[in-house]
Amino acid sequence: MGGAVGLAARRANAALRVTGVTAKRETVEKARQMGAVDEATLDLRAGVQDADLVVLAVPVHLIPAMAQSALSAAQPEAIITDLGSTKAGVVAAVDELISKQKAQVRFVGSHPLAGSERSGIDAAPLVRLAGALCILTPTSSTNGEAYRQVDEFWKSLGMRTMRLPPGEHDAVLARSSHFPHLLAFALLQAQTDRSLSLSGPGLRDMTRLAGSDVSNWVGIFTQNAGELAKVTKEFSQEMRQLSVELEALAAAGTPGVEAARERLFRYLADARQRREEHFRKAPGAATEARADGAEPPTPEAL
Amino acid sequence: MGGAVGLAARRANAALRVTGVTAKRETVEKARQMGAVDEATLDLRAGVQDADLVVLAVPVHLIPAMAQSALSAAQPEAIITDLGSTKAGVVAAVDELISKQKAQVRFVGSHPLAGSERSGIDAAPLVRLAGALCILTPTSSTNGEAYRQVDEFWKSLGMRTMRLPPGEHDAVLARSSHFPHLLAFALLQAQTDRSLSLSGPGLRDMTRLAGSDVSNWVGIFTQNAGELAKVTKEFSQEMRQLSVELEALAAAGTPGVEAARERLFRYLADARQRREEHFRKAPGAATEARADGAEPPTPEAL
Repeated sequence: MGGAVGLAARRANAALRVTGVTAKRETVEKARQMGAVDEATLDLRAGVQDADLVVLAVPVHLIPAMAQSALSAAQPEAIITDLGSTKAGVVAAVDELISKQKAQVRFVGSHPLAGSERSGIDAAPLVRLAGALCILTPTSSTNGEAYRQVDEFWKSLGMRTMRLPPGEHDAVLARSSHFPHLLAFALLQAQTDRSLSLSGPGLRDMTRLAGSDVSNWVGIFTQNAGELAKVTKEFSQEMRQLSVELEALAAAGTPGVEAARERLFRYLADARQRREEHFRKAPGAATEARADGAEPPTPEAL
Repeated sequence: MGGAVGLAARRANAALRVTGVTAKRETVEKARQMGAVDEATLDLRAGVQDADLVVLAVPVHLIPAMAQSALSAAQPEAIITDLGSTKAGVVAAVDELISKQKAQVRFVGSHPLAGSERSGIDAAPLVRLAGALCILTPTSSTNGEAYRQVDEFWKSLGMRTMRLPPGEHDAVLARSSHFPHLLAFALLQAQTDRSLSLSGPGLRDMTRLAGSDVSNWVGIFTQNAGELAKVTKEFSQEMRQLSVELEALAAAGTPGVEAARERLFRYLADARQRREEHFRKAPGAATEARADGAEPPTPEAL
């Protein structure tokens, strides 16, 4: 994701110079070659010291330590932001660091909703920031001018932005992002060797997110465990209810079957229509249709 | 899917002539233009009467009626197969039709594991049959020579084939295909308007299958309701267990947190590795990597 931000910033001329800081020598070369950075370095201090804006692109459990390093290397006027998928814990930890050190450096939490299951510099060109949403999570201690500048930065990459309190961000994203990821892993665990070997493109699609970096997602699930537990428990009840409905449907020849079929139809049709409505008006929808070479089926096709 | 079979058969020279039968005038034109058929017609009798092999490409709940029409139109030497995602009910129904009518026409059930959430003739070029698996479901009444010819037909399109009793097919596919589809619809129903509007590519990926044709899937879920109920109930229990684990993880500062984190790591890492192992060796894997423009991350990247 760091590489994707670099690529987009250079394309959009959103920065005078983009400097990448990485732990891998190989990434230094690759980042330069793909044009994700003007220059790259293994030396965090050297990479950060002249920056106006420092973007922390590391897994959530590493953000506080990385913020600490950036704080001590950055100039006092610098602004720090991050790309973390959870915000309450991250923002509180970094705000506390800054407050304890009476640092002048200002921090604003960000979460661009544009990742993929692939990570590392090779995945950078696959990420589409333009048109995607970036959530900013200022708190009462966030500097207004820093917020404005970070907001401006994401907009200059073509992103839509919105602000949300960190806790509210985590509650909503537990449902819309963290739980779908957990589901992909759980769906794989629900397979037998036999069912895996007799699977098609459907299962591959539904488990693609389980190709995500495990440490990163253990960090996200841990940071947001409470909210995620609620959604997971709720979904467990929904699955239980669905299994009861399916049992009714399986009881062929009984009077309840027709009603069960009608309920199932409505359940599926409602879900499908919500998807159509949401992803058709969402900015990614047109791109999706283009990429696949065909228009999505219309609701009338039901 | 009918269009996809036509396209593949014409490319592979697997048939002297491919005739498409459709209910929509528009499809007649489109099928010709995209090369999915040599000729297409709205007249089932005319389309079927000279055929050596009739492929029924309709939703599972319509297969018996369509088989009846094809039986009465086809020459006695003809072989009929289908593309249905459930097999026990379909195969029993068609076998019974043939037996009742003392028809000479022979039937072999097929299920090529190669669909997508898109249906209709426009989706035909998106389906990759080559390299995918086709399951054949002969019964004790299936003619051996007909089985051999249908098997040969799928192989001539580049498909791998295997045979499975219809009931066993349905039990395995409930887990590997029907349940993942149900999950996509259920995941949408678990969203709020808010969470939908604050979602990214992850949720879009995980709900793509909910763009599938609803009538078709009501038919599939109904045909396989018993097996699907079992998998759904089992998954409900897994979700319940996961929610308990997440609650343990959320109880920060308690002695159980480290162990819970370790269990979560193993759970995710095991799932990810199963996916890597399966989809790397599966024929679709290379294509997937090519299409995305990047290699999937290696397990060592954990």
